[in-house]
Amino acid sequence: MEVRTRAPGKIILSGEHAVVHGSTAVAAAIDLYTRVSFRLLPPSEGDAGSVELELKDTGLAFSWPSSRLKETFSFEAIGPPLSPTPRPCSPEHSKLIASLVEEQNIPEAKIWLRSGIHAFLYLYTSIHGFKPGKVVISSELPLGSGLGSSAAFCVSLSGALLALSDAFSIDRQTKGWLELELSELELVNKWAFEGEKIIHGKPSGIDNTVSTFGGSMIKFRSGELTHIRSSTPLRMLITNTKVGRNTKALVAGVSERVLKHPDAMAAVFRAVDSISKELSVIIESPTSDDVSIIAKEEKLEELMEMNQGLLQCMGVSHASIETVLRTTLKYKLASKLTGAGGGGCVLTLLPTRLNQNLHLPRF
Amino acid sequence: MEVRTRAPGKIILSGEHAVVHGSTAVAAAIDLYTRVSFRLLPPSEGDAGSVELELKDTGLAFSWPSSRLKETFSFEAIGPPLSPTPRPCSPEHSKLIASLVEEQNIPEAKIWLRSGIHAFLYLYTSIHGFKPGKVVISSELPLGSGLGSSAAFCVSLSGALLALSDAFSIDRQTKGWLELELSELELVNKWAFEGEKIIHGKPSGIDNTVSTFGGSMIKFRSGELTHIRSSTPLRMLITNTKVGRNTKALVAGVSERVLKHPDAMAAVFRAVDSISKELSVIIESPTSDDVSIIAKEEKLEELMEMNQGLLQCMGVSHASIETVLRTTLKYKLASKLTGAGGGGCVLTLLPTRLNQNLHLPRF
Repeated sequence: MEVRTRAPGKIILSGEHAVVHGSTAVAAAIDLYTRVSFRLLPPSEGDAGSVELELKDTGLAFSWPSSRLKETFSFEAIGPPLSPTPRPCSPEHSKLIASLVEEQNIPEAKIWLRSGIHAFLYLYTSIHGFKPGKVVISSELPLGSGLGSSAAFCVSLSGALLALSDAFSIDRQTKGWLELELSELELVNKWAFEGEKIIHGKPSGIDNTVSTFGGSMIKFRSGELTHIRSSTPLRMLITNTKVGRNTKALVAGVSERVLKHPDAMAAVFRAVDSISKELSVIIESPTSDDVSIIAKEEKLEELMEMNQGLLQCMGVSHASIETVLRTTLKYKLASKLTGAGGGGCVLTLLPTRLNQNLHLPRF
Repeated sequence: MEVRTRAPGKIILSGEHAVVHGSTAVAAAIDLYTRVSFRLLPPSEGDAGSVELELKDTGLAFSWPSSRLKETFSFEAIGPPLSPTPRPCSPEHSKLIASLVEEQNIPEAKIWLRSGIHAFLYLYTSIHGFKPGKVVISSELPLGSGLGSSAAFCVSLSGALLALSDAFSIDRQTKGWLELELSELELVNKWAFEGEKIIHGKPSGIDNTVSTFGGSMIKFRSGELTHIRSSTPLRMLITNTKVGRNTKALVAGVSERVLKHPDAMAAVFRAVDSISKELSVIIESPTSDDVSIIAKEEKLEELMEMNQGLLQCMGVSHASIETVLRTTLKYKLASKLTGAGGGGCVLTLLPTRLNQNLHLPRF
């Protein structure tokens, strides 16, 4: 039997980077998904079978004979599969996985796939041990652009793997889409977070949380999340600068700046925290007419501009981001980077006032 | 007899705008001056004479008959000339001056001169009453560009007016330049500050203080100043965007943002305060060799970049400033706006490492 899952990407409306240092962030899921199909393969006679991974968007496929996995991992190294609380990948386990990743023929130009494959092997072997199976992954999300592609990868993968495990008591005869229980979503989120740690080093957990729970905006602080609902729809333009960057290095750069300028950076994070809190209040505030919607959007624009300045202060902007900012500013639109910065994507609020008189540039 | 004075412009290395809200700022005088020549004119027979002002750079001259000044001002309105502590221009006094400014034929394109002429009349009549005299002013400083042209105007003018008053006990037979006593400089600074208030509304006092005391860098907070001395020379490139702006409006814009986002802005000002303090410590820190000079310059560059981000958060940057930032960033040079922003000038640190391999762009 086959299970299919999908998990959305996200945008961060405010608080990226600062959230790692305890500030509040506000994020929302977007309508772009990563999709996973997973089936367990019955071993054929005389062959223990393989664990297979196909990454459709890259045209690459990888496989590991179950026998190879069996001989690599001992029960002690990886612990019992499906421990009730997912545990961080131990250094020993990580080392064994690294050797399995090394054996694969990853093209030099796609070397960044390595951490994703590492996370895949960790999640797969932790949940299904050495059972042969095939995972096919495709995504609408541009990779490494700040839209949470790695989290959507980890969430959809964890969901699919768990769905065919004993952890979930879903009716396997059901056809069509199933809604997962809250406790099941929480388990997916925890496993996905472990995957994210492998890919990003020190993620805040916001990406996987938004991708798992989707649906509404969330306010996130130190792992605690609150759902918030916008009283009016907000339209956001997402511009992909197509400048790739290293999230891990950007996060580390901010931490370095914190070590060098602790007082200044603490104040910067307090400012971001305050902006995120204001933002969530404004998003939820009721709007009765066009005037109040316009006032609300103007407040959001000002907060986005302020947040962008603080991100520049943290040193995570980039010439490509500034180009987008300048372009949208010509049309009096407010923008900010979203995600790790250093390239990636830029958010622009498309306010209601544009509806009356929409003259967007053509490129 | 004639007296000549000169007062320098300034750059703000960190803390503009935030200084108005209690943060520390660091500033330095620059080698561009405003020059004033002043002489009292003996009244000729049957003619009470005039107070004349010539602004050499604009090609404009203004004059007010002493008799007109006499009839406009009563002793009560402007108070005794040369009160030991200069007093703010009263609303009554200001109204009378405004009527005198109105009578002059100021070209529409130079309407911004009005507040400077207002300050001139206030200082002149406060110090010399209705005595006829001629003031000629010329300046190397571009006006309204963030280099403290109005402060240099007020300081050089106050110095010249005071030099021919009873407030100073200088030897009037001396030829050549005289150094003023500290108490005299302090008086000049106080009068100049009153002039600045007329021009700028709510100035921090940093511009007139740097222009008056010049010589070294200063750290400035809530009117208190500390002289700081750089252990190594710092070379700064000043780029004039030639985009004019309204300092008063920019200062008011920041105050408005403070009212709307008090917590966030308080944190932003704390961050700036901390950056200015760090900057002054780094500037004074001894450097023993090239390695330590390079390390010092890198720290200064990082702090300038952070300060620029915070200024963007305050909403005082401008597309023209961003263009300069992007251009210097291509050469890995750090820049920040200096002064009120919204156009004006941009500072770029020219580090020692450039000496080895100087490839500056040609425009």
